[in-house]
Amino acid sequence: MHAIGIDIGGTKIAGAIVDQLGNIVASDRVPTPAGDSTLLEDAVVQMIDSLRARAEEEIVAIGVAAAGFVDAAQSTVYYAPNIDWRNEPFREKLEARVGTAVVVDNDANAAGWAEFRFGAGRLVSDMVMLTIGTGVGGAIVAGDRLFRGGFGAGAELGHLRVVPDGLACGCGQRGCIEQYGSGRALLRMANEIADAGGIGQGLARVRSEHGELDGRLVGEQIAAGDAGAIAALRQLGHWLGQAAASLSAVLDPQRFVFGGGVSVAGELLLEPIRAAYLEHLPARGYHPEPDFVIAELVNDAGVVGAADLARVWVAEHAGTPRR
Amino acid sequence: MHAIGIDIGGTKIAGAIVDQLGNIVASDRVPTPAGDSTLLEDAVVQMIDSLRARAEEEIVAIGVAAAGFVDAAQSTVYYAPNIDWRNEPFREKLEARVGTAVVVDNDANAAGWAEFRFGAGRLVSDMVMLTIGTGVGGAIVAGDRLFRGGFGAGAELGHLRVVPDGLACGCGQRGCIEQYGSGRALLRMANEIADAGGIGQGLARVRSEHGELDGRLVGEQIAAGDAGAIAALRQLGHWLGQAAASLSAVLDPQRFVFGGGVSVAGELLLEPIRAAYLEHLPARGYHPEPDFVIAELVNDAGVVGAADLARVWVAEHAGTPRR
Amino acid sequence: MHAIGIDIGGTKIAGAIVDQLGNIVASDRVPTPAGDSTLLEDAVVQMIDSLRARAEEEIVAIGVAAAGFVDAAQSTVYYAPNIDWRNEPFREKLEARVGTAVVVDNDANAAGWAEFRFGAGRLVSDMVMLTIGTGVGGAIVAGDRLFRGGFGAGAELGHLRVVPDGLACGCGQRGCIEQYGSGRALLRMANEIADAGGIGQGLARVRSEHGELDGRLVGEQIAAGDAGAIAALRQLGHWLGQAAASLSAVLDPQRFVFGGGVSVAGELLLEPIRAAYLEHLPARGYHPEPDFVIAELVNDAGVVGAADLARVWVAEHAGTPRR
Amino acid sequence: MHAIGIDIGGTKIAGAIVDQLGNIVASDRVPTPAGDSTLLEDAVVQMIDSLRARAEEEIVAIGVAAAGFVDAAQSTVYYAPNIDWRNEPFREKLEARVGTAVVVDNDANAAGWAEFRFGAGRLVSDMVMLTIGTGVGGAIVAGDRLFRGGFGAGAELGHLRVVPDGLACGCGQRGCIEQYGSGRALLRMANEIADAGGIGQGLARVRSEHGELDGRLVGEQIAAGDAGAIAALRQLGHWLGQAAASLSAVLDPQRFVFGGGVSVAGELLLEPIRAAYLEHLPARGYHPEPDFVIAELVNDAGVVGAADLARVWVAEHAGTPRR
Repeated sequence: MHAIGIDIGGTKIAGAIVDQLGNIVASDRVPTPAGDSTLLEDAVVQMIDSLRARAEEEIVAIGVAAAGFVDAAQSTVYYAPNIDWRNEPFREKLEARVGTAVVVDNDANAAGWAEFRFGAGRLVSDMVMLTIGTGVGGAIVAGDRLFRGGFGAGAELGHLRVVPDGLACGCGQRGCIEQYGSGRALLRMANEIADAGGIGQGLARVRSEHGELDGRLVGEQIAAGDAGAIAALRQLGHWLGQAAASLSAVLDPQRFVFGGGVSVAGELLLEPIRAAYLEHLPARGYHPEPDFVIAELVNDAGVVGAADLARVWVAEHAGTPRR
Repeated sequence: MHAIGIDIGGTKIAGAIVDQLGNIVASDRVPTPAGDSTLLEDAVVQMIDSLRARAEEEIVAIGVAAAGFVDAAQSTVYYAPNIDWRNEPFREKLEARVGTAVVVDNDANAAGWAEFRFGAGRLVSDMVMLTIGTGVGGAIVAGDRLFRGGFGAGAELGHLRVVPDGLACGCGQRGCIEQYGSGRALLRMANEIADAGGIGQGLARVRSEHGELDGRLVGEQIAAGDAGAIAALRQLGHWLGQAAASLSAVLDPQRFVFGGGVSVAGELLLEPIRAAYLEHLPARGYHPEPDFVIAELVNDAGVVGAADLARVWVAEHAGTPRR
Repeated sequence: MHAIGIDIGGTKIAGAIVDQLGNIVASDRVPTPAGDSTLLEDAVVQMIDSLRARAEEEIVAIGVAAAGFVDAAQSTVYYAPNIDWRNEPFREKLEARVGTAVVVDNDANAAGWAEFRFGAGRLVSDMVMLTIGTGVGGAIVAGDRLFRGGFGAGAELGHLRVVPDGLACGCGQRGCIEQYGSGRALLRMANEIADAGGIGQGLARVRSEHGELDGRLVGEQIAAGDAGAIAALRQLGHWLGQAAASLSAVLDPQRFVFGGGVSVAGELLLEPIRAAYLEHLPARGYHPEPDFVIAELVNDAGVVGAADLARVWVAEHAGTPRR
Repeated sequence: MHAIGIDIGGTKIAGAIVDQLGNIVASDRVPTPAGDSTLLEDAVVQMIDSLRARAEEEIVAIGVAAAGFVDAAQSTVYYAPNIDWRNEPFREKLEARVGTAVVVDNDANAAGWAEFRFGAGRLVSDMVMLTIGTGVGGAIVAGDRLFRGGFGAGAELGHLRVVPDGLACGCGQRGCIEQYGSGRALLRMANEIADAGGIGQGLARVRSEHGELDGRLVGEQIAAGDAGAIAALRQLGHWLGQAAASLSAVLDPQRFVFGGGVSVAGELLLEPIRAAYLEHLPARGYHPEPDFVIAELVNDAGVVGAADLARVWVAEHAGTPRR
């Protein structure tokens, strides 16, 4: 029961053959053809053919993950910011070209599903994953199933509002947690702290040497224990914990999993999250509480999750005509 | 396939035999014995016996709904504010006394399920219900299933935070939507408007005649079209629409259903909710949008939903020994 | 080396003979004569005479503590809210009548000094005491000496501002920590939570039975573990911890001591204080941190501290003519 | 009784022989060796040797001032941002190399002490000094003694919080007075005013001619009486006066002294500080009030204060073995 997972990112397309235990049997990677959806489709087909040529078992399904909104039927991409797609029937198109069952899903959903099946969420039935990358992605698993929402656009957890009339967000609103809890927010906070002088000279020093701080520089300062960089990370955790408290009132997960580039900070990130969560949890003490852990499948979560979602779809729909 | 539904409220216990189409075949009602859980248990048993005596078909299951937190297995009540219960194994106790399968659930969940099965939500697979009574209750149906959360304490939608450091809430936190979108909030806003003078002389007049405005007085002014009372209702809708926008980012329902006493205002309530929702919806225009409707089963939702949840449980577990 | 301590409160005058180890050898108590400073002076003189009649050793000095501002020379009371005093030369007046050295000091200073000498502060050289009674009183010990400020009006820690344009304070300003961290603030928060409904039914129940909640009722609910009452206490701690973080930047004590009626809550109060302190501490990790403890001499701190301050004055000024 | 004072700054090391009246007898200055603590130590030793060679009297002690946290024993530097020091036992190291008593202190403490002994604070016993340079430094003199705090990290007055969740500060927190009352804050406000157009065309003009405004340009506009530049200075004074009001409630000084580069604005700075102070003073009218003056020893305060602190230490510990 091998399946192929494809993860279409902004700069590269990653693909892999994944077995039923989540192991990667073979993998591939090419640059994302910029701004041309036909070239992109060709590149995906070519990667599938190339992986299939290396397959040792039958490939039962193909899962594709991409940033954006995908309908609840895992077929049509309403909108994908990295590609020129609006209401694109990608599942149908790709199945016609590759002759195998295809499902399409949101990349954060795929990553969350991979953690649930093979990583940090494998011991629980209900988890929430927050992917702290440039933005804040979300995935919800409830009752052992991926939660997609009525139109497939659910679990956009980065757009939970935490501050009325707050900072402007790329979604067109203001005050979304993405502006307070993402990698981009970390950079903003780190630059502010560096410009404000004071302790944590590491930040201020690299700021004056390199100009605007980027993720690598801030990450190095966190790793080096610079107090300014750690203070920025604490501010992130402060907000993420507050958002998690609201999410608990709605979703009540057994576990929160934090992934994405910023999650390599580990306990330095989790500790302020837990503190803020407990301080802001409604009805604290009247019901069980979740735990907070770091994701395990950092780089491969997208392809592994996409492949497994495809395999699950095939298993559930074996012998069932599509709609 | 008849089932009995019991709804334990703060002042009365309602019970009914409900058929598989959601129709009430027979019903009963007694006052809630105050502050004594043994008397309450006796009253519930007595009502079940009395209803069973009137049954024309076999009663396959009994569903009990109460305000509070119930575990995900629909068995143990972590906490029920109206009764003296902490970690009460009520399912087990009641089954031992009545000899029929029992399930216990949260009252807002029961009401939401009833709307989903037989009322305003019966045409969709994913809905969110907000019950605007004294507080704000919540229920989530996702993929045709009631969403309970990992510990059974999910869908506490009244405790989504909308204002950091906002008004104090009964849950121990501040700024929950319950303090801005509930019947209690409506009264606060109406009294404030009356005290501030200005438009809507109706409110100010009854305020000076009767003192503190209560729900009946404000309801009459809304019905009479008083501008002040309608402004208070609009403020409520303004906040509820903002909360719905955050809930859409997380849950993406096809439909929002509004129930509870305040929902009798109908379109007067829905119109400002829709406006605020659209004003605050993340990524508006990039994915389908839900509609907003009023609940249909106002008074009977609790008993009908409790009965149907019990029937569903039996259908799913027929022949399965309980753990 | 016995001394007499007198504590003039709003409702009673307490007096005691105190030995050099802080032990009370004899004590007395009378109601405060309301609104008449001559009667009050007579009552103090009478209490001193009566205590002196019971003395087994020579009384070397008399210390008087009262709420209000006392000059740095421990002589003149600028203002005492409980008595009709403005710029009252009470030290001189009382010495003339009793023929023994007298010092006058602020009551929070006296209590803080007692803790420093014989209670929770006896192992440190620099401590800050916050007395959480109806208001918030303060005392500072720095380098083993009581810190009075240049005019004697220092350590009014309750009037550190924590919220610009915040809640109105009795001092004529807005946003003082006294409005967020005092017993009065606790009552306001507890009443708000009770009125908002929800968990913590204890608060709501006694609110509906007794009307406005008072200190005794809230204290009982805290002791009973009611979640609403504990949430109110947490909010208090949340603010007190933030104030302590600012006070640390200024005063850098080795220990914070919390006294007053609310401090009987013990760890339930200290835990949220510590959490908020760490979250808001400037330059965290770059210097040693204080600990947080509860006061030990709750009821007798005023008389014990007043007596000891008088003894210290005599010891330091032995043979020195007064100015 | 001559002593040597050394002031280690970010760009230069200043040193001087100072007599017991605070006069500078001889002085020296070298660039700070960047980023190498061994070279820095050598440079300090060399400067001491060179000054000693020019001494006409015995040098009884050496005082060293540096930005950062120094322990209460004036021995160990917990942290110095300009040097690569964490928990550096600098007193012991330097004494071993120069064979004379050494004390180490924070640079703002040294400057404050110099003002207290020989400058703007010489007539009072209790003063607070705020040094308005790039950041905001603080020093407290209480009862004729320098106030260091229990761990030596007190008087960090720049980190009194004035705005909850305010602007990011280099200390890792938000809303510190340093971000509203420093030279850096003045530049931010001046640039904002210039960009906003309106009054004070001078600011806007130099902004468009030179780009980002720096301290020199803003200083010239203040000197020229430009309304925009003076408005920025007033905003600074507005915040500093509010902070002073909170500091008075805690410290009750007889005098506030303002030093640092921005203090050359003199009355233009003091006038809005006094106004805001009076507007925000708790219990105004019920106790004496401090006055507000500009520092007198601007450039030499660091070396003069460091030398005098060393002399005081020797006088107090003559014949006393260290610890």
